[in-house]
Amino acid sequence: MHKEILENIGEKELINRLAKFMPKNQASDDCALIKNKKDNLLINSDSLVENVHFNDISICPQDLGWKAVVSNISDLLSSGSKKTIGITISLILPAKTEWIWVEELYIGINKALKEYGGIILGGDCSTGSQKTISITALGIRGELKLLRNACKPGEIIFTTGTHGLSKLGFMIQNKVNFDNDIHLNERLISKSIKHFCRPQIYPNFLKNLLKTRPNKKNARIGCTDSSDGLFQAIQDLATESKCKAIIDYEQIPKEENWPKGDKWDQYYFFGGEDYELVFSLPKKWAKNLSRLNKNVFEIGFFVKGEPSIEFKDPKKNKLLDSKPFQHF
Amino acid sequence: MHKEILENIGEKELINRLAKFMPKNQASDDCALIKNKKDNLLINSDSLVENVHFNDISICPQDLGWKAVVSNISDLLSSGSKKTIGITISLILPAKTEWIWVEELYIGINKALKEYGGIILGGDCSTGSQKTISITALGIRGELKLLRNACKPGEIIFTTGTHGLSKLGFMIQNKVNFDNDIHLNERLISKSIKHFCRPQIYPNFLKNLLKTRPNKKNARIGCTDSSDGLFQAIQDLATESKCKAIIDYEQIPKEENWPKGDKWDQYYFFGGEDYELVFSLPKKWAKNLSRLNKNVFEIGFFVKGEPSIEFKDPKKNKLLDSKPFQHF
Repeated sequence: MHKEILENIGEKELINRLAKFMPKNQASDDCALIKNKKDNLLINSDSLVENVHFNDISICPQDLGWKAVVSNISDLLSSGSKKTIGITISLILPAKTEWIWVEELYIGINKALKEYGGIILGGDCSTGSQKTISITALGIRGELKLLRNACKPGEIIFTTGTHGLSKLGFMIQNKVNFDNDIHLNERLISKSIKHFCRPQIYPNFLKNLLKTRPNKKNARIGCTDSSDGLFQAIQDLATESKCKAIIDYEQIPKEENWPKGDKWDQYYFFGGEDYELVFSLPKKWAKNLSRLNKNVFEIGFFVKGEPSIEFKDPKKNKLLDSKPFQHF
Repeated sequence: MHKEILENIGEKELINRLAKFMPKNQASDDCALIKNKKDNLLINSDSLVENVHFNDISICPQDLGWKAVVSNISDLLSSGSKKTIGITISLILPAKTEWIWVEELYIGINKALKEYGGIILGGDCSTGSQKTISITALGIRGELKLLRNACKPGEIIFTTGTHGLSKLGFMIQNKVNFDNDIHLNERLISKSIKHFCRPQIYPNFLKNLLKTRPNKKNARIGCTDSSDGLFQAIQDLATESKCKAIIDYEQIPKEENWPKGDKWDQYYFFGGEDYELVFSLPKKWAKNLSRLNKNVFEIGFFVKGEPSIEFKDPKKNKLLDSKPFQHF
């Protein structure tokens, strides 16, 4: 009998298959929505696994704790959370783990909670062969509904920042050898490591959206975060919103001194773990937001068409053939 | 430098240390309480790890899915949840895992949710070396506050059922050799396997408590579940409520044909994963409940004194010296 194993299925297809076990409206977004009598709650779960998402060489436990929290709050934010209630933490740790490692992890967790709000609500701890941190975060949804399926043709696509830095930071920490002919700028190196180890998120994002909204009737915004890479974020928005994204390569914000070349473009588009927000807005709103906030970047627009991504410059479309970095 | 590793710290001490990172009122119960504008939400996280909590020999994926849900809902119940909202699932699976295994797991998860209420709210999936199922369950607290720290001297201690069956089921499934002189009854064998693979919980428990409450002022009840063993459940109640439990060995309900002997008493008191409720009630309430529900069992009472457990028959106290089954 033919037995299907996960590495032949792939991560995205696996998630699609699992979605069939869930109620239909829960499946496609970063967070699930819990409709409560008064508040609308958002809930999100994410795991970090040793030697898959991190290792002791690339990140210290305090940074890891920070990052585990931030990756979850980023999903809440990209679903419209105005306030993080708190998190539960399920730890799996080998019996030989040193206590100081656990303590440092929790210090990092609490630093991130202090910065972005929320408390530790509970959790459990088990032994296992591979360190794993599973966090479930709960937030309260504000006035705006941020959803993957709310982008519309004609809307402008934005990101809150540059990409690829986290991937580069990961590679630097793991002593990956770059081609000798590429000299990495010192500032780029330290910024990349910081992006990988202590990613930041945008707690004022929602407030700025509300401030610049031209019409109170606009309550749904197409949005996700780029934790799986900028390409994947745009692809998810296009797929769920059933429209085509046209990306202008020249408009994409890049870090000063980011090297040129296909490989570096791949790191940029597929690297992941950058936790920038990727979203689209109607033109008027887009204009208002760009005026208020100089740190959001127009990178393209949506049009009617098959859910897909195209570059404005057709020569750049070969970039899209690269295989994303997948865990399975 | 002396480095403290987890296996020298032990599970309970580890949990105590981690509690220091949490707000004080969140630390001691099975679930965390989230005070919302209208509803009071309960949240609980629990992980099952391959070769720690299960293996492919002892339990099939469908039963494992069932059990993962039940162990979480049991914690909600023992904290007074009147309704399960839903769960998030964080899966970690080796790349060689067969899809059919995952599908069966989700079938079991959905069967348990159909039986006890709640939906799948979301989750994520990562690769890793050891299969791990981390579930976070959300419930709505009813009128009664079920807490570990609410037992009082003078109250009667109850359990909802017998113990040790799950441990025995686990050992049978793992082909543990029992002494030749012990002939295990066929009915006991099949019941034990069922308890280990498809544990049941008590969704009517709260209703029965409310029905038999003599005074509406009584809103706090000392309660936990016996997922870590009957001894640990009583110990947790005694510790958190700061009183002493006196247990009557003769009153403890045992499965028909449960073998006699110290080893079998150890399985009974320390086995774990039985998901019975362990709680205490004032005398009048206790009497009312016993009359309504023949499936709750008085096993002792609380008195003033050092947080601890004593048997009414002092000869039985040596049982308490046994080391519980710990994961670290």
